[in-house]
Amino acid sequence: MGVNENVQKPLDRLSAELASEMQAVNDLIRARMSSRHAPRIPEVTAHLVEAGGKRLRPMLTLAAARLTGYDGPYHVHLAATVEFIHTATLLHDDVVDESRQRRGRPTANLLWDNKSSVLVGDYLFARSFQLMVEPGNMRTLEILSNASATIAEGEVLQLTAAQDLRTDEDVYLQVIRGKTAALFSAATEVGGVIAGAPEAQIAALHDYGDALGIAFQIVDDLLDYGGATQTIGKNVGDDFRERKLTLPVIKAVARADDDERAFWVRVIEKGDQRDGDLEHALHLLARHGAMQGARADALDWAGRAKAALDPLPDHPIRDMLSDLADFVVSRVA
Amino acid sequence: MGVNENVQKPLDRLSAELASEMQAVNDLIRARMSSRHAPRIPEVTAHLVEAGGKRLRPMLTLAAARLTGYDGPYHVHLAATVEFIHTATLLHDDVVDESRQRRGRPTANLLWDNKSSVLVGDYLFARSFQLMVEPGNMRTLEILSNASATIAEGEVLQLTAAQDLRTDEDVYLQVIRGKTAALFSAATEVGGVIAGAPEAQIAALHDYGDALGIAFQIVDDLLDYGGATQTIGKNVGDDFRERKLTLPVIKAVARADDDERAFWVRVIEKGDQRDGDLEHALHLLARHGAMQGARADALDWAGRAKAALDPLPDHPIRDMLSDLADFVVSRVA
Repeated sequence: MGVNENVQKPLDRLSAELASEMQAVNDLIRARMSSRHAPRIPEVTAHLVEAGGKRLRPMLTLAAARLTGYDGPYHVHLAATVEFIHTATLLHDDVVDESRQRRGRPTANLLWDNKSSVLVGDYLFARSFQLMVEPGNMRTLEILSNASATIAEGEVLQLTAAQDLRTDEDVYLQVIRGKTAALFSAATEVGGVIAGAPEAQIAALHDYGDALGIAFQIVDDLLDYGGATQTIGKNVGDDFRERKLTLPVIKAVARADDDERAFWVRVIEKGDQRDGDLEHALHLLARHGAMQGARADALDWAGRAKAALDPLPDHPIRDMLSDLADFVVSRVA
Repeated sequence: MGVNENVQKPLDRLSAELASEMQAVNDLIRARMSSRHAPRIPEVTAHLVEAGGKRLRPMLTLAAARLTGYDGPYHVHLAATVEFIHTATLLHDDVVDESRQRRGRPTANLLWDNKSSVLVGDYLFARSFQLMVEPGNMRTLEILSNASATIAEGEVLQLTAAQDLRTDEDVYLQVIRGKTAALFSAATEVGGVIAGAPEAQIAALHDYGDALGIAFQIVDDLLDYGGATQTIGKNVGDDFRERKLTLPVIKAVARADDDERAFWVRVIEKGDQRDGDLEHALHLLARHGAMQGARADALDWAGRAKAALDPLPDHPIRDMLSDLADFVVSRVA
């Protein structure tokens, strides 16, 4: 409990530090998720946007802008853009994964239908592009439109790679860099760009976001197998049941003997899963130190995120971003 | 046959006139639908892009730019943007409508799966935004990002309005202005904007595209019931089976007596369709002159499109655009 309180502080401190700007972001999101003609749009969006997400990505944009001395209004637009892109991808992800729960509530595809999730997601994508155009800054436009393409590319790559046992750690890194880290690094980078920060600082912000996003996704994938303690709680094994090859399994497959390999072929490639298979998978992950290995990778990326902050100005926000990297991996520390 | 030959000429003449620029658009589309990491993306996209679509929308952008005297390279980017947006919406539409055929071939959602169609559609949307950023023109960015939002809004509105018998001609116009005409009018408008045309000409190009798109969609909806001749050919009745309320039915519902109204409630609102229902629906459309009424509306919008061209320079392209408006409605003339 004590440890948990300490590690939650960086996110709370960032939220407190950026409270008034985050309020402006939330107001802008609410204003732009409206639709004059189609009331289904704000219904579906509100369900997701107001479910109490942490707003981690837009906070990164606000933090980067503040850290590099920005005092204009447009970091709010860029932060809202980032959250809209994120929300659109969540809507589509839940359709693709046939998910039934998100943030502890039924998903939009379950409450309404897949059609609404696809089309409202498209609307939010389009809204994100309208928002990113408003600051009139070509470079932030390039960064954010590139990030959108990279996210979609990562998702498509995951579609074909996730059930293929030849998928190795390099391909996994490509997938999560695309589907997760691209938006983190764009979120931090545009904060520096809109502030007109020196190139070395902009590059530092990009690298911080990239490493943070990678650490974040590895931790997410670890928690899906119960984390380092391998406690089977609720939702453990979702990736296993969806036959989604993530880092722990990739590490176990790389060390598998013939029998183990046959097991992974059956449950992941062929999707023939039986009672006790998840338990056996967890046993194999433990035997090969796959969870500890993935945990070490996450900690390494968190370390890289912290190191990337070096060129940035000495500032309380920089310390909070550094602590945030520790916080992200603290759930598996 | 003779009539058909004549009316096809405008599209052929436009294609011939703009052949080298259209080749540049096709080359750019092919270059940008590639993906370094995810081969599924060009596979799915090529299936649709190379199925022999008419490239009507990008041709409108090229024509508008030529007509207003543009000689730079960026109309090609804008035209490719328009086609990417169109292709992305087709992929998502086929998922939403559970379509099995498109341009005479099996749909991508059938050949691959819904997941691929959703995610590759997202990729093409993102690609369209990357492309529209490249000319560095803020106003074309605003027009095209607004069009994307309007398209998605029209699609969501259709989702809720299409099975609701209270949907009247005003709502129908809102839906098709969004889902179809918004991209036509953006396509023509950006051609004039990139050329730096006078405001009156830009407004004329917008109005032409808007009216042309509306006429185009009314004709499409008429043909779904066999056109003015009501010949039951293949694919006739798709909208009826999908319970999609379009203009002919809206007109028939407005004139329905109690028995007829009960029929429409059963087949469209409740979706309880039986053998012979399509034939009965066609009979009701004929009884109330609904097909002829919708046809008159299409011709009226084609007339408005032609009239909108007035402020534009005297030029062979202007005449072709005028003939194109006739051509679009010639299938039901």
